[in-house]
Amino acid sequence: MRFGSFMDRALEEARGAGARGEVPVGAVLVGREGDVIAAAGNRTREQSDPTAHAEMLVIRAAAKRLGSERLTGCDLYVTLEPCAMCAAAIAAARIGRLYYGAADPKSGGVAHGARVFSHPQAHHVPEVYDGIGAGEAADLLRAFFADRR
Amino acid sequence: MRFGSFMDRALEEARGAGARGEVPVGAVLVGREGDVIAAAGNRTREQSDPTAHAEMLVIRAAAKRLGSERLTGCDLYVTLEPCAMCAAAIAAARIGRLYYGAADPKSGGVAHGARVFSHPQAHHVPEVYDGIGAGEAADLLRAFFADRR
Repeated sequence: MRFGSFMDRALEEARGAGARGEVPVGAVLVGREGDVIAAAGNRTREQSDPTAHAEMLVIRAAAKRLGSERLTGCDLYVTLEPCAMCAAAIAAARIGRLYYGAADPKSGGVAHGARVFSHPQAHHVPEVYDGIGAGEAADLLRAFFADRR
Repeated sequence: MRFGSFMDRALEEARGAGARGEVPVGAVLVGREGDVIAAAGNRTREQSDPTAHAEMLVIRAAAKRLGSERLTGCDLYVTLEPCAMCAAAIAAARIGRLYYGAADPKSGGVAHGARVFSHPQAHHVPEVYDGIGAGEAADLLRAFFADRR
């Protein structure tokens, strides 16, 4: 299935992030034609930037590449439930569909905590599909944090 | 009062953003010694970046300047209530105090909507002071949107 291969690419980015010592989360931004516009893993440590989550990096890269602050009709694949920051950026960018892997009860902002898309103020709400590649995404995170303890 | 002059600086940045055709919101990031580390107005249009809110720009610039993804003990002054994206970035950056001007019932994520700091999941909650320079901040926004109608 198509969405499976995009999530595979996101998982690759997550592994790359882990290898760099970053929390292993990866994201892929797919354009209206089904083309990968941007792919990234977390780089908060490397860039000394608390906003450099994988989702933010692909949104920024794709918006720059398309020359528009709106990514209407584009899809985002990410290995972990986005936090509130990333969820709100997804809404601001008018992303059409959000596919994510593992749930994040601790820091997620879609199905947990701030539940950014679940308020009357939400200007734009993407279609949300969760659980895709969740097992592998969660394993990567578990192994990463186990190594650090 | 000290916080008044930092908010004046944020209002200056907001006016500058409006003059560039951006939504007139400005922010200032103040370090532990009371020094301005970064100041910015919105640049979402200019940079084709939906994440380029004033708050995000000063957080990113300050984190880069200090070489750390955490801005512990720093204060953020912004002319408008932060949205959910910016509020979550403020938490991620461990900013100590948030001073904001006008309330934003439509897009705010602190006292409205997602109320990012009001969930058990919030890892870090800054002290929040609202209403500082609110009249001038709101006037700037009203004039900007009136011109566009």
